[in-house]
Amino acid sequence: METHVFFLQLMVILLAARLFGELAARLGAPAVIGELLAGVVVGPSLLGWVPLNEVIKLLAEIGIILLLFEVGLETDIGKLVKSGGRSTLVAVAGFLLPFLLGFGVAWVGFGMDLMVALFVGGTLTATSIGITIRALSDLGRQHSVEGQVVLGAAVLDDILGVVLLALLYEFSIGGGVNLANSGKVVLFVVVFFLIAPGMAKLMSLLIRRVDLSTDIPGLIPTTIVSLVLFFAWLAHALGVPELLGGFAAGLALSRRFFLPFGIALKTDPSFAHRIEQQMRPIVHLFTPIFFVTVGLSLNLHEIDWGSGFIWAFSASMLAVAVLGKVAGALLLARESWHSRWLIGVAMVPRGEVGLIFAELGRVSGIFSNEVYAGMVIVVASTTLVAPFGLKALCRGQPAPPSA
Amino acid sequence: METHVFFLQLMVILLAARLFGELAARLGAPAVIGELLAGVVVGPSLLGWVPLNEVIKLLAEIGIILLLFEVGLETDIGKLVKSGGRSTLVAVAGFLLPFLLGFGVAWVGFGMDLMVALFVGGTLTATSIGITIRALSDLGRQHSVEGQVVLGAAVLDDILGVVLLALLYEFSIGGGVNLANSGKVVLFVVVFFLIAPGMAKLMSLLIRRVDLSTDIPGLIPTTIVSLVLFFAWLAHALGVPELLGGFAAGLALSRRFFLPFGIALKTDPSFAHRIEQQMRPIVHLFTPIFFVTVGLSLNLHEIDWGSGFIWAFSASMLAVAVLGKVAGALLLARESWHSRWLIGVAMVPRGEVGLIFAELGRVSGIFSNEVYAGMVIVVASTTLVAPFGLKALCRGQPAPPSA
Repeated sequence: METHVFFLQLMVILLAARLFGELAARLGAPAVIGELLAGVVVGPSLLGWVPLNEVIKLLAEIGIILLLFEVGLETDIGKLVKSGGRSTLVAVAGFLLPFLLGFGVAWVGFGMDLMVALFVGGTLTATSIGITIRALSDLGRQHSVEGQVVLGAAVLDDILGVVLLALLYEFSIGGGVNLANSGKVVLFVVVFFLIAPGMAKLMSLLIRRVDLSTDIPGLIPTTIVSLVLFFAWLAHALGVPELLGGFAAGLALSRRFFLPFGIALKTDPSFAHRIEQQMRPIVHLFTPIFFVTVGLSLNLHEIDWGSGFIWAFSASMLAVAVLGKVAGALLLARESWHSRWLIGVAMVPRGEVGLIFAELGRVSGIFSNEVYAGMVIVVASTTLVAPFGLKALCRGQPAPPSA
Repeated sequence: METHVFFLQLMVILLAARLFGELAARLGAPAVIGELLAGVVVGPSLLGWVPLNEVIKLLAEIGIILLLFEVGLETDIGKLVKSGGRSTLVAVAGFLLPFLLGFGVAWVGFGMDLMVALFVGGTLTATSIGITIRALSDLGRQHSVEGQVVLGAAVLDDILGVVLLALLYEFSIGGGVNLANSGKVVLFVVVFFLIAPGMAKLMSLLIRRVDLSTDIPGLIPTTIVSLVLFFAWLAHALGVPELLGGFAAGLALSRRFFLPFGIALKTDPSFAHRIEQQMRPIVHLFTPIFFVTVGLSLNLHEIDWGSGFIWAFSASMLAVAVLGKVAGALLLARESWHSRWLIGVAMVPRGEVGLIFAELGRVSGIFSNEVYAGMVIVVASTTLVAPFGLKALCRGQPAPPSA
């Protein structure tokens, strides 16, 4: 690609994200809706100014792992553990219900093959951490009790989704399920979350040592971004979603991080502050590229809007996707009804893992074009439903103080 | 390219830049030398870990225009104009001498064809603003009187180099020179530098208005980067080197910028400060990618080191490249000899425009592989000679206060 063309495309993405984000905010909608819409408008669906190319995709990937890094950086691991029981309940229920319901409706209701129905169910399992957190933070609620429960649950069901994907993928090619292999996936996830934060912490201490003795500027941006890239790569190498690598790195560098077994490596507050201050502009530069790319990857022209099946199928699946997640959260007996609804609606957006399921279904020939289009519509609609739902739920309720 | 592979490549580039930069600094060499070397080490010449691919190239291009943006941001346009006479002398002399000497030596000394000799001379004309400024700032001298003269001269001879490129290119394909077309190039350059800073200034006022009324974070990183990308694109569209677009945008946003005709649009100091503070980490993240890429693009294996011609040719051309620039600066009758030498040596590094000349020569069949390799060696050597020369000249001389 020619350099000046790329410059122009990147500029259009950044400016469209800002313009539509501002418009959305001024119309009372969350800014992230505007950014998704920006991608639909400048992408192949409408204006066709920016095609989805490899470079933009890679920059978007950096955007999502950096966003998860920032989420990790702002996470209080103590609170996350405290809400662990509730998060687990929400994650497991919000994973099983959409999976079983989606599978059942596709199998029985639409008479699909077993394998197709299983992939349809799988596509509906994993919450999009990025969109969920962004929608909560647009409302100033990412640090609330509900925000912590949702964050923990979203991380967990991303992992559950990936394990399911590994299982179903083997099932689809081998015809059987190898429990040893699935066990390996689970083991690697556990190993990753046990070692990654400690490793990242040790690396950050090394960076701080260099920081004290160097005269060359730019240490923090280059080394911290490298750290995040490394853990994203490590996560991938162990079969864990890449964005969770960014999250683990952020968690380790947050001010409130303690290593297990009481080895409290105190984070120097001024160093932690400089990391936050210097990383924030970089995160803010890259993340809109991710949200716009979600919109870009949707080509509304490819969908046969005249087919009755598309409408019936995607409407039923959207209902399953929303009800499955919300019902899971309503099981939280100790929370107020308002909190349960808030958590449930916040869990609705599907994203990366869902799109990977759908893509794999299409590439391996399990999904027909129609089923694929239907599932992409469902994933996209969930990202639009949740921010509006949250906004409506929070209307008149002041943002609570940090949990 | 797969995402995790890209993550690893980018990490290697960033970490190698830092590691070799620190090593160079600790050995008493400028950090930029370490970064260039990092590219040679991790690239095809040695370890082969990182091939030069399209994505890395595009990120490097962003790096160089952002670096020029920062240079513009820190430039005092008043001082630049004040040193304009000296800069012009240095630029014109440092453009003509290497061109004529290079042409003469290649034509007479090596018996090359007229066209080949003209391209050889052309390759030696333009100073690399990026490497020059970086070498000066590694020594704390970018804001000195000499630094201002060099900056102005480097900008001017980049423009002269591009005009010459346009002329020679037409000559090579058409066999003749169309003065009207060359005039157009000159006109566009002048138009660009007349309108770009004012336009950028007006846009920055718009950004500041939005800044006062928005609640969505990340305005400065996305809009200022967009602004820089836009002017790089506009520069390209008008036939001006892209990196001068970044420079023009930076100049317009600097604290000391005034529109012509006395319309002084005061830059709000706190807004200017926030732009500097938020853009700096982004600039520091991207610029090492550029310097490493210069090293990556050099494949030492492709050169036939046994050929006597390569050694004789590149040694003569390196001598021409160094002497031509230094001799130009020695003409500055009013400066001290130390200043003249400092300016002359700072002008030595060739970069982007030189490589474009060499590349065009190779692609259009004017340069044989050997001549091409020789010219690339010369361009690379000049980037290594200058920082060491500057360091030696400044030894024992304390960095002067800002001019």
